[in-house]
Amino acid sequence: MSISQKLFTLSTTENIGIYNLTEKVQKFIETTSVKNGQALIFSRHTTTALVINEDESRLLEDIKTYLKKLAPPTDSYLHNDLHLRDVPPDEPENAHSHLMAMTLSTNEIIPIMDGKLALGTYQSLMLVELDGPRERTFFVQVSGVT
Amino acid sequence: MSISQKLFTLSTTENIGIYNLTEKVQKFIETTSVKNGQALIFSRHTTTALVINEDESRLLEDIKTYLKKLAPPTDSYLHNDLHLRDVPPDEPENAHSHLMAMTLSTNEIIPIMDGKLALGTYQSLMLVELDGPRERTFFVQVSGVT
Amino acid sequence: MSISQKLFTLSTTENIGIYNLTEKVQKFIETTSVKNGQALIFSRHTTTALVINEDESRLLEDIKTYLKKLAPPTDSYLHNDLHLRDVPPDEPENAHSHLMAMTLSTNEIIPIMDGKLALGTYQSLMLVELDGPRERTFFVQVSGVT
Repeated sequence: MSISQKLFTLSTTENIGIYNLTEKVQKFIETTSVKNGQALIFSRHTTTALVINEDESRLLEDIKTYLKKLAPPTDSYLHNDLHLRDVPPDEPENAHSHLMAMTLSTNEIIPIMDGKLALGTYQSLMLVELDGPRERTFFVQVSGVT
Repeated sequence: MSISQKLFTLSTTENIGIYNLTEKVQKFIETTSVKNGQALIFSRHTTTALVINEDESRLLEDIKTYLKKLAPPTDSYLHNDLHLRDVPPDEPENAHSHLMAMTLSTNEIIPIMDGKLALGTYQSLMLVELDGPRERTFFVQVSGVT
Repeated sequence: MSISQKLFTLSTTENIGIYNLTEKVQKFIETTSVKNGQALIFSRHTTTALVINEDESRLLEDIKTYLKKLAPPTDSYLHNDLHLRDVPPDEPENAHSHLMAMTLSTNEIIPIMDGKLALGTYQSLMLVELDGPRERTFFVQVSGVT
């Protein structure tokens, strides 16, 4: 079995934004010798998430609206009472971002067949920034047989 | 290490419906030599999801009601403005189906112990159709030691 | 490749409560010889979930409030009509617990690098009890290369 791993960085540009990672992950797989196995993608933040769905621009706006309906940024949250917590001066009020991240997922696993991500026709792997813009990192681990 | 993989097809019969896959996956494991490892189940669609929970008929109805409350099919969504998108003539208005799928999951991983899915007493693996009826596919990858 | 697995037990003390498992899993990894690979953590119940997020006490209260808003325990659910189901006399009315569990996740996979969980600075692995207090079990499988 072969295991290859790489930490990627991503500069997000929006407060809530969605970034397609499919091609980055596919290209990394091609630098390994893995033909059949899996790619584990892991977001290393508590206010970003990963999702596998359709990368259609109007749907991406619907996703943002949906997440804001589930966890409204303007609601009151205990986590946002910064004066009651021991935090740095630039700590954001981002409880809603954490709740959105939990509703989605921190990791995704995609099978690899014949050296390619075995995604369906309309599936893309996307990172969802929920408290940006920031410098973000995600981890990709490719494992399997050559 | 051994890796075996198989693409399954499933004909769904409802617009929103829930289908127990546990036995199909268990039978596939038994055709491989894997005794300890894991089964990765991957839905290849953006309007289906996988879930591990209790297969109790009244709960399955509660799940459908819950998903429709979170993402009401009758709400307005940008993705449903089909005249503003380049789509085939039979494109459905299914933004709610995408949002429901994201709230659940595209993939599940279940440990295998002694050749069996290490599920708890009340756990079943289920595929959730969110924009059917349709022909659907899901991928199962069994990996581990013999 | 090496695969090590262990079933853990956890006595929860609250009806809805959140328990940090990070150290337990890290210590288990150190009993194996795996240096690079992954830890699969699997909850074996339909009314518990796993989540990777920040273990900050006020945020944990926000999570409970959020889950109760999404699936209110006082709403009517078909699964709670216990007289219409074949159930033991102590069966709880817990449809909301199942729905909360599905909104989060049954399993989490965390990469292992140099013998350590490759979590980000603010990430903790937590088990979410949604229908306690009870005796619970979760499964940890560590696989990879030494």
